[in-house]
Amino acid sequence: MNGTAVGSAIGTAGIRVARAALTRLMEPSDLAGMALIAVAGPEDAVAFIRSRAHSSAVLEQEMTAVLSVSGTGRWPGLADALSRWRPRLADLAPERDLYVLERLGGGLLIPEDPQWPSALADLELGAPIALWVRGAVGRIPEQKRCIALVGSRDSTSYGANVAAEMASSLVQRGFTVVSGGAYGIDAQAHRGAISAAAQTGGQNGDPRRGTEEGVPPTLAVMAGGVDRFYPSGNEELLRAITEQGAIVAEVPPGTNPTRYRFLQRNRLIAALCEVTVVVEARWRSGALNTAHHADTLSRSVGAVPGSVYSANSAGCHRLLREGSAVCVTDAADIAELADAVGTNLAVEQEGAPALHDGLGVADLLLLDALPLRSTTTVDKLSVVAGLGTAAVLAGLGRLELLGLAQRANSGWKRNSNG
Amino acid sequence: MNGTAVGSAIGTAGIRVARAALTRLMEPSDLAGMALIAVAGPEDAVAFIRSRAHSSAVLEQEMTAVLSVSGTGRWPGLADALSRWRPRLADLAPERDLYVLERLGGGLLIPEDPQWPSALADLELGAPIALWVRGAVGRIPEQKRCIALVGSRDSTSYGANVAAEMASSLVQRGFTVVSGGAYGIDAQAHRGAISAAAQTGGQNGDPRRGTEEGVPPTLAVMAGGVDRFYPSGNEELLRAITEQGAIVAEVPPGTNPTRYRFLQRNRLIAALCEVTVVVEARWRSGALNTAHHADTLSRSVGAVPGSVYSANSAGCHRLLREGSAVCVTDAADIAELADAVGTNLAVEQEGAPALHDGLGVADLLLLDALPLRSTTTVDKLSVVAGLGTAAVLAGLGRLELLGLAQRANSGWKRNSNG
Repeated sequence: MNGTAVGSAIGTAGIRVARAALTRLMEPSDLAGMALIAVAGPEDAVAFIRSRAHSSAVLEQEMTAVLSVSGTGRWPGLADALSRWRPRLADLAPERDLYVLERLGGGLLIPEDPQWPSALADLELGAPIALWVRGAVGRIPEQKRCIALVGSRDSTSYGANVAAEMASSLVQRGFTVVSGGAYGIDAQAHRGAISAAAQTGGQNGDPRRGTEEGVPPTLAVMAGGVDRFYPSGNEELLRAITEQGAIVAEVPPGTNPTRYRFLQRNRLIAALCEVTVVVEARWRSGALNTAHHADTLSRSVGAVPGSVYSANSAGCHRLLREGSAVCVTDAADIAELADAVGTNLAVEQEGAPALHDGLGVADLLLLDALPLRSTTTVDKLSVVAGLGTAAVLAGLGRLELLGLAQRANSGWKRNSNG
Repeated sequence: MNGTAVGSAIGTAGIRVARAALTRLMEPSDLAGMALIAVAGPEDAVAFIRSRAHSSAVLEQEMTAVLSVSGTGRWPGLADALSRWRPRLADLAPERDLYVLERLGGGLLIPEDPQWPSALADLELGAPIALWVRGAVGRIPEQKRCIALVGSRDSTSYGANVAAEMASSLVQRGFTVVSGGAYGIDAQAHRGAISAAAQTGGQNGDPRRGTEEGVPPTLAVMAGGVDRFYPSGNEELLRAITEQGAIVAEVPPGTNPTRYRFLQRNRLIAALCEVTVVVEARWRSGALNTAHHADTLSRSVGAVPGSVYSANSAGCHRLLREGSAVCVTDAADIAELADAVGTNLAVEQEGAPALHDGLGVADLLLLDALPLRSTTTVDKLSVVAGLGTAAVLAGLGRLELLGLAQRANSGWKRNSNG
């Protein structure tokens, strides 16, 4: 029904069907395709691809202009692009795809919808044609509330714990945890978010959590079609995400996840989130690719430190060493990066300063010179501390006031708390 | 005998005795004292303190000039300083102190000696009056070869392992490991350095290691007098350091380590070393003080990451988060910071890139579309990959050359290594 809620929006039905078709014909980030849509609009773009026209000087010229603005100088040309798109016309059935999603309790979110995440605009020409959403279509929160937690599939128990705890604590702070629905860190992040939402029942964090307008605990951005729960081992988890949050993909139902689509999916995660945190990653890891996208979009990137002996933290340490990520050890650090609530939690850690922290050099010297058990005289203190008699007397007065020194049978000694 | 080697240097005997005396009269970083020495010279400085003069307008004026140049605008004045120094005249016996060190196989290193570490000049007026050295006096290497490994006394087994391994590997690279001789990280760093020197026997690293002119594996900079091995639990270790390296302090024999002297000692460690690495430190830790000194002296600072659950790594993560330290995970990272050998070891970690790393988007799409077991046709590939027939044929040729694709009964399939 969420699907229909959007699908039946007045005036956009044709555009929605056209965009549904275009997600089938074009791979993610097919810049020529984006240029065609920008120039002709979704419906005419589909019509043109369906036509027998081999090319169009006018279209090609305007597309070249759009592409050059977005930094793509030379491109193979419209004919070449058509040869990519047309072989897929045979499989084209956008109404069927929209119906499939509707039956699964989702729909197609398009830029023309008010709920379209404005953050995706930062991808410029690389922005998705549309988003296939399984779950409440209107549930993708604004960038400021979204935190990506990503990492290796083969996570360690350390990384798994950190991911789950950070996710849970972020949800309690009213954030939505975005990840890729994969095994390992992704799954732990989704689980932590869902469990926190279950515990808080919308009391902590955002009171509207879970409701249609509310902030969902977690989103999964997939590299393949949202009709399939992939990987199958995460089926239950992904089902739970569709109920409390949403599963999102720019590719239509029935599409297989491929290496290329995984890399493209990462740019969506980065674009949707205010902060991307790499919890665990090997020296070479897809999670670093997501971090790189976030960096390119000038979003904040965080990395979780770990043992120098753990290959699964080598990627995080690489980001820290290269200065492309900030060291984050808990949700408070992440919230601080997101410039949101809880900024000062880190400071609290400092704990109460020791009593002697505020002392000047002279008083510190004097305090060091004061014996704990026996007592001593002002003259002795003057020698041991290397201070004049006057300075010793003045200092003893200050230390006594602070409760660090005390008079004892005609001498002085340190208080045990000094 | 090393002591005499320096102690008997022609022309400096008087200055050496004077500086020995001044280390007894003045606490470390007593700027007024440093100003007096700068103005009057060591011998006249002692003579003036011994005299009955209550002050000296000329001296005080020149000292004020020196202090203001070094940023100390207002100071209590010479009379006040004299009241600090004179109470200690009673205990003054510099020849005895020099003799004590000589008997212990050491001596007093003074700025007038050719072996004086030039790096200490960066401390400006805060530079030590002299260094009491137990071990070969000429053995303090140049800054470029010195790496400080510091950290908490209550180290975890993780921190202990990292400290020992980093130290050992640094010595094998010809570096000298400098630390504070304390329990925990310090002790492990010294141990790792000594064991590496024992193993290599001067074959690896610096061939002159261990010899009088050679690079010692490790130095311990102490907060108290070098006549005592403190803490007593490290006696054997410290004895070993005096044999292969040296133990150094700016305070004379018989001086107790105090909180103030520990903080001052940290500035010496930072000043002597090209890089200061904090291996393990709590949120509040003396090791952070050493890092801060290194930062102030614009020396490189490294921090070793660890578990976010370990309180003993919180200080390191704090440094990383605040950007005042670089993330270092092994000796190669540290050597890179020291801008020395082994710079590229970190890169090697990257390992061989996957075969598909160099592929363009089209070939990547094509590779993703190729089935591993069954075979497929060019037309099918064109649909699945979303590429024109011509592009598919060209791409298949490239992939075949790379050994990623292969012809099989009138169709195409992926090679298992693809």
